[in-house]
Amino acid sequence: MELARYLKDRQQLIDAALDRYLPAADTLPVRLHQAMRYSMFAGGKRLRPILALAACDAVGGDLKTVMPVACALEMIHTYSLIHDDLPAMDDDDFRRGRETCHKVYGEALAILAGDALLTEAFILLGGMAADKPEIAKSSCRALHIIARCAGSRGMVGGQVVDMDSEGKEIDLPTLEYIHTHKTGALILASVQAGCLIGGGGEVAFEALTRYAGAAGLAFQVADDILDVVGDQALLGKDVGSDEARGKATYPALLGLSEARGRAVELRDVALASLSGFGPDADPLRQIAHYIVDRSF
Amino acid sequence: MELARYLKDRQQLIDAALDRYLPAADTLPVRLHQAMRYSMFAGGKRLRPILALAACDAVGGDLKTVMPVACALEMIHTYSLIHDDLPAMDDDDFRRGRETCHKVYGEALAILAGDALLTEAFILLGGMAADKPEIAKSSCRALHIIARCAGSRGMVGGQVVDMDSEGKEIDLPTLEYIHTHKTGALILASVQAGCLIGGGGEVAFEALTRYAGAAGLAFQVADDILDVVGDQALLGKDVGSDEARGKATYPALLGLSEARGRAVELRDVALASLSGFGPDADPLRQIAHYIVDRSF
Repeated sequence: MELARYLKDRQQLIDAALDRYLPAADTLPVRLHQAMRYSMFAGGKRLRPILALAACDAVGGDLKTVMPVACALEMIHTYSLIHDDLPAMDDDDFRRGRETCHKVYGEALAILAGDALLTEAFILLGGMAADKPEIAKSSCRALHIIARCAGSRGMVGGQVVDMDSEGKEIDLPTLEYIHTHKTGALILASVQAGCLIGGGGEVAFEALTRYAGAAGLAFQVADDILDVVGDQALLGKDVGSDEARGKATYPALLGLSEARGRAVELRDVALASLSGFGPDADPLRQIAHYIVDRSF
Repeated sequence: MELARYLKDRQQLIDAALDRYLPAADTLPVRLHQAMRYSMFAGGKRLRPILALAACDAVGGDLKTVMPVACALEMIHTYSLIHDDLPAMDDDDFRRGRETCHKVYGEALAILAGDALLTEAFILLGGMAADKPEIAKSSCRALHIIARCAGSRGMVGGQVVDMDSEGKEIDLPTLEYIHTHKTGALILASVQAGCLIGGGGEVAFEALTRYAGAAGLAFQVADDILDVVGDQALLGKDVGSDEARGKATYPALLGLSEARGRAVELRDVALASLSGFGPDADPLRQIAHYIVDRSF
């Protein structure tokens, strides 16, 4: 399996599904739906839906069944980026080289486009749970996990602590709180939901939970390292932007070499948690490698 | 049945349940949960949850079962108020005589508190669907309805069109679009979800859907009338504030007398739709009267 090819194929599948699931650009109110689509199709890597699909693969599930869940996760991720970029939050004018939603559509519409994308995710998940009685139980459980991971004790909570920590000296436990919540929670939800909808049992669920916890944190450590040493194309934002903003990072707290060691350690925990799986889990394995290796 | 007493009793039940369902004020991140609670307990009338409970009563359902749904609806309503009040939107410093969320907690936290309340609603609904297999089917259907009514083709869509229409001349169909979406959709979802979780069949569901459509629009017509002639305590905002803001209203488009006629007509449609129900639907009947009669 060649990972680059795999990721690209999956991105295309996911983009096509997102296009089907999102309200058409000419649906009223038109500008709202345009704003939602503008941010949804702004060149995201689709990491969360790819992880949901890969977790579904790992337990031998059906890709078509998990696709709405995968797309809902990407909608939630995109809403969080739109709101993070707002003037009252990070005040970013650009993301991945394109103007941010509020720069193009104005602040009010960007707030509402974010709100609508978050809600759209639950329309998709709720529709799936309501219309497919054969997977209603796992759908409800997946929906519940996704909501918890996205909420005040998950992603939104991480964003609040991150915001409160800007320009302050923070310790490693606070940094880990931020990352396990702000980005880790939704990555965890992606893998867990993919496993559930794919029909994975409790043993697989526990193993994939360990995988996602380690891989999610590794992703963030690697992202911090890339912010110091990386190339802008890989990172999707300006190199050095965390430091400029006074954000705590792993390299700043641990030093570059120890941060790299931590990333490798987390990658290996992620790989070890997959020991009970066969080749169906190879995409998850390669993604764990990719996450960490790009920061070297 | 004395309506004032009934409404007060229900408000107390709902407030107690909201207090149980919301994360405690000392849960991390503390300020986020404080901000969420600040806006949740800012003296709302609890119309949407009361309607959900009353619809459940009308079909002979169990109040305890419907309470999480009722509270989720109020969380969604509250998030929409927090975001509507933001500087980028209506820029309101006060709501019901208290400072708005962003005045107390800052704009960034207000955006996130709104996001978290919307998500919390789905945590509650998803948990109910996941944990109660005996009502999983109706829970999923209720969740799906609520999400659709709250999203870009429902409440958020109405808010966008309302925003775009400010200071412009709009016609009656546009005004009805705004109201049936911005406020009507969530009122409809409240009644429909209460009916479903209460175990109502398709005939009851259709009748209560007609009730909610008419009562929801009547509520808005009456609100517009109150904005012209009403007293501030009843209205919860400044009298004349719509006109000052250049918002289209029913009295402005139809004249006061015809607007009142329209409210009465809608009330009577709401009442007629309940003709197949016995005394269990009396609260819904009295609420329809109350909604319209307060504007006379």
